[in-house]
Amino acid sequence: MSNETIAILGGTGDQGLGLALRFARAGRRVVIGSRKVERAVEAAEQVRKQVPEAPAVEGRENADAVVDAPIVILSVPFEHVAGTLKAVRERLVAGQILVSMGVPLATAIGDGAVRTLGVWQGSCAELTASLAPRGVEVVSAFQNVSAHRLQALAEPVECDVLVSGAKDARAKVMALCDLVPGLRAIDGGPLANARIVESITALLIGLNVRYQVAEGIGIRFTGVPES
Amino acid sequence: MSNETIAILGGTGDQGLGLALRFARAGRRVVIGSRKVERAVEAAEQVRKQVPEAPAVEGRENADAVVDAPIVILSVPFEHVAGTLKAVRERLVAGQILVSMGVPLATAIGDGAVRTLGVWQGSCAELTASLAPRGVEVVSAFQNVSAHRLQALAEPVECDVLVSGAKDARAKVMALCDLVPGLRAIDGGPLANARIVESITALLIGLNVRYQVAEGIGIRFTGVPES
Repeated sequence: MSNETIAILGGTGDQGLGLALRFARAGRRVVIGSRKVERAVEAAEQVRKQVPEAPAVEGRENADAVVDAPIVILSVPFEHVAGTLKAVRERLVAGQILVSMGVPLATAIGDGAVRTLGVWQGSCAELTASLAPRGVEVVSAFQNVSAHRLQALAEPVECDVLVSGAKDARAKVMALCDLVPGLRAIDGGPLANARIVESITALLIGLNVRYQVAEGIGIRFTGVPES
Repeated sequence: MSNETIAILGGTGDQGLGLALRFARAGRRVVIGSRKVERAVEAAEQVRKQVPEAPAVEGRENADAVVDAPIVILSVPFEHVAGTLKAVRERLVAGQILVSMGVPLATAIGDGAVRTLGVWQGSCAELTASLAPRGVEVVSAFQNVSAHRLQALAEPVECDVLVSGAKDARAKVMALCDLVPGLRAIDGGPLANARIVESITALLIGLNVRYQVAEGIGIRFTGVPES
């Protein structure tokens, strides 16, 4: 297993693509996954064009993208989380880390208001954990990071990222944040705290609408000691 | 009704006392309420001592504290919210604003973990609204502001305050934030968003524990245009 590869399922979407750009720029090998291989290949091409110095950026079908990737980021809309997991779960192996960044927004059921749905397991991250194969650790992160800011490669992202999950896996995902200028990882404790983090995303989307901020309002915690 | 008075029920507690100090310092008339009038009088004395320039600081029993106060802040622990409301509701009149700053922490039922309880109405603020007399507007605010920072009068508080509720009442509570150096009001939309804001408090308490920050970690939103 290459220690460097980051697979991003749904990496053709705005936020997934933003992460792909940032991680590629940091020198990590990135595999973009999509339901359709052509779309993944196209997105990878776009990343290579914007980050010519990137060591390796590939596009694959989701199930192929997870192979040999120590960290797999699930960047599909909430309504596709379970389906995507079903499509890839046979290829996941114990020891891999699965990063949940989905948010159960009510828009998934056509409710236009900016709020979250109640998920039986508590959050998208815990739903993901309930569907992940044994030995695959689920970590919640990146929900609150604006796609617009991620894609604006010339600027630092300027956002804190709450990372929740089991300790060792959490630390590995926190280290990923250090690869992106302006992102700071905050120890978000156990996975169940994803309930709070996911709802903060709904709050931020509402703030973007009320304050008419196209680039996305971010969040920072003050008074956190430097690690 | 004096336009200046702010009543703080449970103003003898850490956070209520902190707000009393800050509002007194800003030149507002403050009435501290408590279940026991002696404790309220004592707390008022303490505020006068720390803020000798304060125009008027009084201590009263909760039910007497709400009289003639356009804004009443409910700063009692979650488990006392309903009881306190019962004790004062006959004295509240239409047009008053009731500020909910309670958080349904699981500690209320002896659960030591830092998490919120499910409240049938959705949040402490919505519970408060369900118990308030007709015509009294409930606004959610101040949950996330550290008591320690409020009481450190020499320093700005450095925290954003999400204010949620009906538009006109919300604007009045947002204006209160401007009285305190370092506090910034953020338009938190409808009252139901208190569900998110209250859970953020649980998150912050968890961060204070994990990062061992006695003075309390705060929250700031980035990219919010100046109003």
